[in-house]
Amino acid sequence: MAEVDEKEMKTFIQKIATFCKRKGFVYPSCEIYGGFAGFYDYGPLGVELKKNIKDEWWNRFVRQRDDVVGIDACTINHPMVWKASGHVDSFVDPLVECKKCHTRHRADHLIEDAVGIAVDGITIEQINEMIKKHNIKCPKCGGELTPARTFNLMFKTFVGPTEDESSIAYLRPETAQLMFTNFKLIMETTRVKLPFGIAQMGRAYRNEISPRNFLFRMREFEQMEIEYFIHPDKVNDCPYLTDEILDFEMNVLSAEMQEKGESHKKMTICEALDKNIIKTRWHAYWLYEMYKWFVDLGVNPEKLRIRQHLPEERSHYALDTWDIEYKFPFGWKEIHGIANRTTYDLQQHMKFSGKDLTYFDEETKKKVVPYVVAEPSQGVDRAFLVFIIDAYHEEDGRVVLKLHPKLAPYKVAVFPLVSKDGLSEKARDVYEMLKKKFAAFYDEKGSIGRRYARQDEIGTPYCVTIDYDTLEDGTVTIRDRDSREQVRVKIDELPSILEKLIEGEMRFGELKKP
Amino acid sequence: MAEVDEKEMKTFIQKIATFCKRKGFVYPSCEIYGGFAGFYDYGPLGVELKKNIKDEWWNRFVRQRDDVVGIDACTINHPMVWKASGHVDSFVDPLVECKKCHTRHRADHLIEDAVGIAVDGITIEQINEMIKKHNIKCPKCGGELTPARTFNLMFKTFVGPTEDESSIAYLRPETAQLMFTNFKLIMETTRVKLPFGIAQMGRAYRNEISPRNFLFRMREFEQMEIEYFIHPDKVNDCPYLTDEILDFEMNVLSAEMQEKGESHKKMTICEALDKNIIKTRWHAYWLYEMYKWFVDLGVNPEKLRIRQHLPEERSHYALDTWDIEYKFPFGWKEIHGIANRTTYDLQQHMKFSGKDLTYFDEETKKKVVPYVVAEPSQGVDRAFLVFIIDAYHEEDGRVVLKLHPKLAPYKVAVFPLVSKDGLSEKARDVYEMLKKKFAAFYDEKGSIGRRYARQDEIGTPYCVTIDYDTLEDGTVTIRDRDSREQVRVKIDELPSILEKLIEGEMRFGELKKP
Repeated sequence: MAEVDEKEMKTFIQKIATFCKRKGFVYPSCEIYGGFAGFYDYGPLGVELKKNIKDEWWNRFVRQRDDVVGIDACTINHPMVWKASGHVDSFVDPLVECKKCHTRHRADHLIEDAVGIAVDGITIEQINEMIKKHNIKCPKCGGELTPARTFNLMFKTFVGPTEDESSIAYLRPETAQLMFTNFKLIMETTRVKLPFGIAQMGRAYRNEISPRNFLFRMREFEQMEIEYFIHPDKVNDCPYLTDEILDFEMNVLSAEMQEKGESHKKMTICEALDKNIIKTRWHAYWLYEMYKWFVDLGVNPEKLRIRQHLPEERSHYALDTWDIEYKFPFGWKEIHGIANRTTYDLQQHMKFSGKDLTYFDEETKKKVVPYVVAEPSQGVDRAFLVFIIDAYHEEDGRVVLKLHPKLAPYKVAVFPLVSKDGLSEKARDVYEMLKKKFAAFYDEKGSIGRRYARQDEIGTPYCVTIDYDTLEDGTVTIRDRDSREQVRVKIDELPSILEKLIEGEMRFGELKKP
Repeated sequence: MAEVDEKEMKTFIQKIATFCKRKGFVYPSCEIYGGFAGFYDYGPLGVELKKNIKDEWWNRFVRQRDDVVGIDACTINHPMVWKASGHVDSFVDPLVECKKCHTRHRADHLIEDAVGIAVDGITIEQINEMIKKHNIKCPKCGGELTPARTFNLMFKTFVGPTEDESSIAYLRPETAQLMFTNFKLIMETTRVKLPFGIAQMGRAYRNEISPRNFLFRMREFEQMEIEYFIHPDKVNDCPYLTDEILDFEMNVLSAEMQEKGESHKKMTICEALDKNIIKTRWHAYWLYEMYKWFVDLGVNPEKLRIRQHLPEERSHYALDTWDIEYKFPFGWKEIHGIANRTTYDLQQHMKFSGKDLTYFDEETKKKVVPYVVAEPSQGVDRAFLVFIIDAYHEEDGRVVLKLHPKLAPYKVAVFPLVSKDGLSEKARDVYEMLKKKFAAFYDEKGSIGRRYARQDEIGTPYCVTIDYDTLEDGTVTIRDRDSREQVRVKIDELPSILEKLIEGEMRFGELKKP
């Protein structure tokens, strides 16, 4: 269970939401109409940060890999997809209604508010006991509550000109199932061979009874997911576990450790496999890949851990699930999940569609149902929040957003020291040159200190200032957001310096001081 | 009215749909469940082509411009948004029902099928007359049809735990309105100054009564749109019309020319403005920008024209609208629209929300309602289709997809001439080097001719082959998809050569022959 202080979480998240709104990262959707609970719109800076996160994921896990192909499927789907997946029957949350004012509430949230800790995975029976034990009433009017019942979280709509049972369709609550429904076509029209993955990024929808905590629990969100298929007899034949990966250290918290009341331990992947803490080498590999993705994009590795689901937490289809968790100021919370889904989904779709979704193994000349040994799955919006929160620093009474340069909405800002004597024109030239290659911002308003502060706040890693010396010798200062150091460099060298800094091929400290 | 032969269109589109499915570009959604009319999923190659199209648009019209900011808003919206926009009342299609079998049909489509030409913009009265005149019956059972009535095309759903009138929300039928609902927040949290644009890419949904013709009329699709706001007193003050743009030639078909039965004429933008054919300089400018976007991405300019809407075609909010049309093998058809929306939308949202959406003009110290002089708007899926169809060539009995290198799913394929004697290893090395920078594909299966043909079919512009000479002198052949010419170059020079070819800084013919 996540160790989260719900009240502290609310306060902190509110601060971040206010910051995100003020700087144009994230707005409450339809605010002019009083807002729309659970829906958020990305503003001018947010859309860039979000696109950079998605591009980094897609480039790394699809374009740079030979064993993963991408798809982009629809968000409104044939109802059979969600019958086969089990969502029509099982994708539910506990709901209680006030007997007096008839307001409906999410039962587990009322309990969390009453007892102050998260209670994920609690059963309907446990909920009804807790409501009785803690004498929980309607938070709106104080009325008595009905017993809890289940509520399906899928949004439904009607497709076609009639509105009845036969035209009901669902908005997908996850991107995952569409990899399974397209599995046959992908096998027939590409040359994929096991092991391989199918990746997708895109919107998903959940009709949360009480959406809350900003980007943490939204009704409309985006996911980035991979279904990684292997031969069912080769659950441990992972060719990618190099020595470098085996020696990689992670904070690990297994189900057994949790049951003993232990906290996470730092160990190498090799150790976790040797001690049978992580059961399959494929699961270990994908945990490494996703953990490393966050680390390579600047997230503090000390604030990351992997945590195994307790048996009662696991979804109906999962044999084993590990989350990647981030240590937020209010406690550890899931930011990524990797389930072993076995052959469950393909079997279900074979059963419901009557179609053959097996794979012909050229070696053994036998048909097999491919096995999903790992489903790396994360919410884009939650990743967005992690990158913002991990980068958020208050220094000398102001915000510095220490985003990784690859994620920053602007890579570089260009300023004339003053907007006269031809400095603006020169600065414009430098700006136009840089903009062709890097997301750039031009600013000549206010003091230079104020302009640096503005860029620090939105995460721009480098600022270039054109001053009187520039007109003499063609050099400019380049300032580093995090160290606030400044170095003089030649204009001609700016593009290659910036490229190396952004790509991590050079650290700022390595630039020669004047 | 579009000059489209509906029957020819069906045949041709079916051929392209089959090709798109066979090569993994586009699949019918949920095919294992019998498909889902109006919904298509993008496969492994399609997702890359679509992403490249979207990235080219976003980079050019948002990241490279100082006067446009982006947003990414929700697809399920507060119902007031669509009341204010007029969609709840006016976003309708004509529907008839069979009195015998009760099947519902789109009335204008029945007429098109009967008379063989497109009848966009026809009124309910005209429809009922045509049904009578041509004695149109139910295409399913031959039964008599009811008089036509209107049907709202927005998908609706219920948000929250109750299902009643108060919880109805709509899936957006266009991305546009969210630029208006976020207008106030963008003004408050960024430093935009008129004139400026707000851009968005993303999904939209229309519950078409009879979706048809593959990606042309889908129920779920993507749009790329800009709302370009100007000062209402400065409708003609466009600072971007350089001599180069004014001298640019387009095929132009005005409403007046259509009324006289004339066909389009080639003229410069300057001429179209001088003759008052295009009414505002801003409209001319954005028509140029979008026309040029297609041309720069390889679309044959002879197959493009701009066509003014006839007064009866225009939407209720539009003062003037021009489409960009493409000459498909079955006739001219809209691929992009640019409407002058005036202050209509902001006025409506002010009225319905009671919020002040005016802009404070620093110069005159007066509040004004910004004026949308141009709304460049296009469907991503239709653009996808244009790029595929314009690129589709049958040569010597096989398909060559002459996509612009920037759009091609793979920029380069790498082959060993034969997979022995160390050629595969060398080819793998070259592939790994290129892949860091370019979307690349490795293939060693089948004859070299067969491998070239496979790449030609999916639009890969360049193929690099490693042969025995490579092991001796470190050179490889690079082959051009369109001319089928081959040139020997050094491996070290490959990255810079490919970059120049893709960016259009060098033509293949300029490479030295051996």
